[in-house]
Amino acid sequence: MRRSEFCQFMSTPFDTLHAKLTRAHYISSVGGLLGWDEQVNLPPKSSDIRAEQMSLLAELAHEASSDPAIGSALKELEAGFDALDFDQQVIVREARRDYDRVTKLPAEFVMEKARLSSAAYHAWTEAKPANNFVGFAPYLEKHVELAKREAAYMGWGDRPYDYAISQFDPGFSAEKIDALFGELKEGLVPLVQKINASPVQAKKSLLKGFSIENQRKFLEEVTAALGFDYERGRIDVSPHPFCSGSGADVRMTTRFDADDPLSSLFGSIHETGHGLYEQGLPQADHATPLGQHAGMGMHESQSRMWENQVGRSREFWQRFEPRYRELFPEQLAGFSSEDLYLAINAVEPTFIRVEADEIHYNLHIILRFELEKRLLSGDLAVVDLPQAWGDLCEELLGRRPANDTEGVLQDVHWSGGMFGYFPSYCLGNMIAAQNWAAVQTALPGVVDDFKQGDFSRLLAWLRTNVHTQGRRYPALELVKRVTGEPLSPKRLLDYLEDRYGALYCG
Amino acid sequence: MRRSEFCQFMSTPFDTLHAKLTRAHYISSVGGLLGWDEQVNLPPKSSDIRAEQMSLLAELAHEASSDPAIGSALKELEAGFDALDFDQQVIVREARRDYDRVTKLPAEFVMEKARLSSAAYHAWTEAKPANNFVGFAPYLEKHVELAKREAAYMGWGDRPYDYAISQFDPGFSAEKIDALFGELKEGLVPLVQKINASPVQAKKSLLKGFSIENQRKFLEEVTAALGFDYERGRIDVSPHPFCSGSGADVRMTTRFDADDPLSSLFGSIHETGHGLYEQGLPQADHATPLGQHAGMGMHESQSRMWENQVGRSREFWQRFEPRYRELFPEQLAGFSSEDLYLAINAVEPTFIRVEADEIHYNLHIILRFELEKRLLSGDLAVVDLPQAWGDLCEELLGRRPANDTEGVLQDVHWSGGMFGYFPSYCLGNMIAAQNWAAVQTALPGVVDDFKQGDFSRLLAWLRTNVHTQGRRYPALELVKRVTGEPLSPKRLLDYLEDRYGALYCG
Repeated sequence: MRRSEFCQFMSTPFDTLHAKLTRAHYISSVGGLLGWDEQVNLPPKSSDIRAEQMSLLAELAHEASSDPAIGSALKELEAGFDALDFDQQVIVREARRDYDRVTKLPAEFVMEKARLSSAAYHAWTEAKPANNFVGFAPYLEKHVELAKREAAYMGWGDRPYDYAISQFDPGFSAEKIDALFGELKEGLVPLVQKINASPVQAKKSLLKGFSIENQRKFLEEVTAALGFDYERGRIDVSPHPFCSGSGADVRMTTRFDADDPLSSLFGSIHETGHGLYEQGLPQADHATPLGQHAGMGMHESQSRMWENQVGRSREFWQRFEPRYRELFPEQLAGFSSEDLYLAINAVEPTFIRVEADEIHYNLHIILRFELEKRLLSGDLAVVDLPQAWGDLCEELLGRRPANDTEGVLQDVHWSGGMFGYFPSYCLGNMIAAQNWAAVQTALPGVVDDFKQGDFSRLLAWLRTNVHTQGRRYPALELVKRVTGEPLSPKRLLDYLEDRYGALYCG
Repeated sequence: MRRSEFCQFMSTPFDTLHAKLTRAHYISSVGGLLGWDEQVNLPPKSSDIRAEQMSLLAELAHEASSDPAIGSALKELEAGFDALDFDQQVIVREARRDYDRVTKLPAEFVMEKARLSSAAYHAWTEAKPANNFVGFAPYLEKHVELAKREAAYMGWGDRPYDYAISQFDPGFSAEKIDALFGELKEGLVPLVQKINASPVQAKKSLLKGFSIENQRKFLEEVTAALGFDYERGRIDVSPHPFCSGSGADVRMTTRFDADDPLSSLFGSIHETGHGLYEQGLPQADHATPLGQHAGMGMHESQSRMWENQVGRSREFWQRFEPRYRELFPEQLAGFSSEDLYLAINAVEPTFIRVEADEIHYNLHIILRFELEKRLLSGDLAVVDLPQAWGDLCEELLGRRPANDTEGVLQDVHWSGGMFGYFPSYCLGNMIAAQNWAAVQTALPGVVDDFKQGDFSRLLAWLRTNVHTQGRRYPALELVKRVTGEPLSPKRLLDYLEDRYGALYCG
């Protein structure tokens, strides 16, 4: 949809809204670039000026996105909502959500939360290696309190966790996620037991000495083959991999380890999934909600499908194994094709979420969801968190971590008060599997394309059904429209059983 | 000088001025980073979003630097000017200059010039390879007209070229430069004739096959040894080398050519000179004129001294030649130490300014200065420019270029209406040579330090005498304070005679 379809004159409220959203979008995109540059390029002693620049850009972005002209335009447009066309209604509805979020919170509250997050992050970086939960607990307590106050400001005072979730995945609630995760857990536990009892063992740790230069070459070939457009994006190195920017300029990052080549490769395929989504969102509408993603669960479903369903498939490796061996002949000499495939699909329990395989990963998320829910409802005090973490870990993973470094202190999220984000990862797995099942029906034999390194039919399907939809539909509705079924963990369980049951207990 | 020395209360006009200048500085520094990123990182098809971002940042920077609160604060401070301390006076005086420049020009004029520059740049990129001066002339005519209008807006209606010069080098005028360049030309002509008649010939073009990886290694070692602080800066690759950012985060660029290793090396030493100046400006005052550079001539004097007086010296190469040979043993096998030194100090006439050696370079600048002066005074019509270029070229360099591609169309500057910038390059050479002579007197034997790769005494001298002075003194005054002599071309002529006379006719 082009802007000219909306209006014939320069001064309609819709024009005003569009111009103001565009301005806010570009300012915020500059802030994003500063953040990318900080991770990728910033000289070590230049962080002071960057902090000043970023704080100034945050202020300018807040000014732009809370511009009263947006509020007036929205009011006028909402009064004549039924007369708007569908895409206009989407923009007005979603712009209202965004506008309320930036205007309903008092400036002092926003500053208090920013200050707390900065102090809490610092405390966390010290507490984690020192296994010192007590040193971090006061910050976490304060964050829990602020999360409740934030929900109250926004009119969700009785449901703080639902509000937290809705920030990242509008339309979801703790209750809905509870039902989904409950069913998922029930299916996962027997599968995990079965695999853990299997004599099959991956030799992943024997992959050593992979030169960074050739790793880089391989992952650039792979990600370009998947469809990432390097003329509108790039990949660089940063301490923690991420994907930033919008479709017009997508910046992914990775990190390399000569003795852990699969981590960088699959991390990059994962970020490529995020990048393909961004590059596929409606180009002309990046500045309005119409051209923006449908929530973090949906975003994660894109990265997970490319990483797992595609990147870890036998068909994918039929195409890329020869090239991999060409680049790393000696390193792979002792590995049969089956060894390699098994290493790529290694399943082994770990206490660390970011190192978990795609089966266990879901259990790590269920654990965090459960604890966040209790924390924000007041059922669990921060002081009791380590004990509760250990108990749940034992229940879900079969063992307790020896310390809080490997337990409750392992993730950065809570130091920023980011409650409600963890569920997106697991919702993403479910959506990915459900979309994947729909793709198999819609495009029979599409996985065979992968053997020739051809991913175009899959990408075109995602473009049509997911990417170009932007934020037209809340994720739950979009999933139903795309797959014909309400979101459920069934397809994820089927997929995991198919791939891993066969591999480990076949 | 720290901000707290200025004021005891939050609400003095000086505080307001300081806060507003700081805000404008940080916004403009973000614009600078966007420009750096565009040259170094931007994916080829992402230029649309970058154009939007940069235009928005330009608008925000203009808003910030023309904030009426700056004007009111300046008025109040100017009313009590004599009661201010010296540094405060510097800030008020220089902030007034900057404020007038951004507020006296009507917004429509600024936009007209920006639009013309964009169109003229495009026309120039087509006209230059096609040797089509006629296609570029209308844009240049319009630029001449705008330059005159700009000077009139600023109150310099009768001296448009003086205004143009003062934008880059406050305190200089066409008349002053005329006198300096006249004396310089008189001294250069016999030196050039002597060298051109010499049988000594540099074998520069035989330096071939220098791997990019080792070139990068060598230039990083060299620039770090010179004193560039890589913890507050970096070097990357871009199509045209430049140095951007401020002392808190200096970003230099270079470009590599396996068959022209000296160009990248000396280009990088040149940019390092700019970078050392920026890193040496008063750290706490980057946001005000006190912590900013004293004009383009002074900036260029820093880059030129490090590039030429230091980087092309025998003493420098006594330290670095062994390492250079270690990295490029085969490539340098046929070169004696004297061959290498001669290649580094090759003198040969060329029509192209950016390829010129440090003797001829001055003649290229004198030519451009002369033509700009005539263009802006109305003595020369744009249509007659190619003829005038050829005549002057014959007079100064002894030959006419065969076409406009190698002549009047070679430089990008005029497509952006940048009249008055060229002289800075040659003034920089003069200042560099005069400072260099003063250093020899102040620090006897300082060049012998270079044999051990020690540049710290030289850098400390520049820090004390030039860098930490910021914009306290106009360049002409600063030169006199530092060297005890008014600016003159004598030291430059002596230096060129010493180095090149000995080498070519010794």
